[in-house]
Amino acid sequence: MSHHTAEHRSDEMNRCIQTCQDCASVCLETLLYCLEKGGEHASPEHIGLLQTCADICTVSAHTMLRGIEAHSVICGACAEICRRCAEHCESMGDDADMRRCAEACRRCADSCSSMSQAA
Amino acid sequence: MSHHTAEHRSDEMNRCIQTCQDCASVCLETLLYCLEKGGEHASPEHIGLLQTCADICTVSAHTMLRGIEAHSVICGACAEICRRCAEHCESMGDDADMRRCAEACRRCADSCSSMSQAA
Amino acid sequence: MSHHTAEHRSDEMNRCIQTCQDCASVCLETLLYCLEKGGEHASPEHIGLLQTCADICTVSAHTMLRGIEAHSVICGACAEICRRCAEHCESMGDDADMRRCAEACRRCADSCSSMSQAA
Amino acid sequence: MSHHTAEHRSDEMNRCIQTCQDCASVCLETLLYCLEKGGEHASPEHIGLLQTCADICTVSAHTMLRGIEAHSVICGACAEICRRCAEHCESMGDDADMRRCAEACRRCADSCSSMSQAA
Repeated sequence: MSHHTAEHRSDEMNRCIQTCQDCASVCLETLLYCLEKGGEHASPEHIGLLQTCADICTVSAHTMLRGIEAHSVICGACAEICRRCAEHCESMGDDADMRRCAEACRRCADSCSSMSQAA
Repeated sequence: MSHHTAEHRSDEMNRCIQTCQDCASVCLETLLYCLEKGGEHASPEHIGLLQTCADICTVSAHTMLRGIEAHSVICGACAEICRRCAEHCESMGDDADMRRCAEACRRCADSCSSMSQAA
Repeated sequence: MSHHTAEHRSDEMNRCIQTCQDCASVCLETLLYCLEKGGEHASPEHIGLLQTCADICTVSAHTMLRGIEAHSVICGACAEICRRCAEHCESMGDDADMRRCAEACRRCADSCSSMSQAA
Repeated sequence: MSHHTAEHRSDEMNRCIQTCQDCASVCLETLLYCLEKGGEHASPEHIGLLQTCADICTVSAHTMLRGIEAHSVICGACAEICRRCAEHCESMGDDADMRRCAEACRRCADSCSSMSQAA
């Protein structure tokens, strides 16, 4: 049985793929903003977490597109990295860009967490 | 001057980022289809080209999101890989899935080629 | 305190970075062998698992090179994917190339599992 | 004819794969150093170039491991990104870490440039 395009996957998985790709993009945009801002925004821990979040979100989306069972493992790790990235962004105080990134990460953490358990 | 979100980039670059991400997804969906189909569709050259196209499209999108000048180099290579991937898919004969992938690759080749020269 | 080169990291982490990079390379070499061989070796599940293993090993190495705490999450997922990839290779019967890949994956699973708990 | 392990590839290609992987690691170590140092070392252009260099070096190594002809395109782009990254590091003045990164990038640019033409 084929499952190689969107209509062969569950709606939930299609939404999760899109959410991961959106989160990766927002993390890279936020990373750029943080480098421009400097200070604690540009700490190795924060920049490293944003880039790692973009990396694992990309691998997560790609693993779901490959249609393999092991996506549950990757989605589980992605959910946890997204949660940490959201917390790190929220700890930066009241900043519209950090809030936007935290929201994208929370959304992705929720979606990946569900995908991780559904598998 | 900040250029960290969509409204700070040119419309053309925003479209190119989206086109690269779409092309990466279609290549991975097509790769799965080709493995299911087997035969020449699953040759190391075709599977390797589809995965490499997904890889360079992802790096291309991420490089534009980073806002660095060197995106022109990556976009140029992405355009060439997409062109080759489209030709390879088209050489597989009359097959709706191959045509779909070839179209996504042609669209990405055109968009990346323009971005490569604009820079 | 700086921790940006090999001499600033623990010996165990340096070995884990190298083991992850070696495992990624072996998985991609094995993927090529499996496509050449065809049949069950080239099933979407096996090819997809080999590519996903290469992907997460690469992210794991890069996350350790970034010096961030979240490497423990990525190393944990990497260990689990490596374990599954090793089992899948071992299930293919008595084949020198599958054995070589299974050994690289077992080694990486052990190393990443330790790194995951140490953090 | 199989070409899936080191003994089936040219010595030059094996050296290039290793050189790309080493360059990716050095770029990520240097990125961490630059974030710790701050100032112009942590500019979006420099950090973005270091990460993009690590990305394209990784894709370059993986494309050679896949044994596909299109590696020449990726190696060509990798050579150019490495050259730019080396120049950027050299422009930072007399700094042992920047020199180390510039040397790794020059070595990789030379190796990838040869692989790009050999194909």
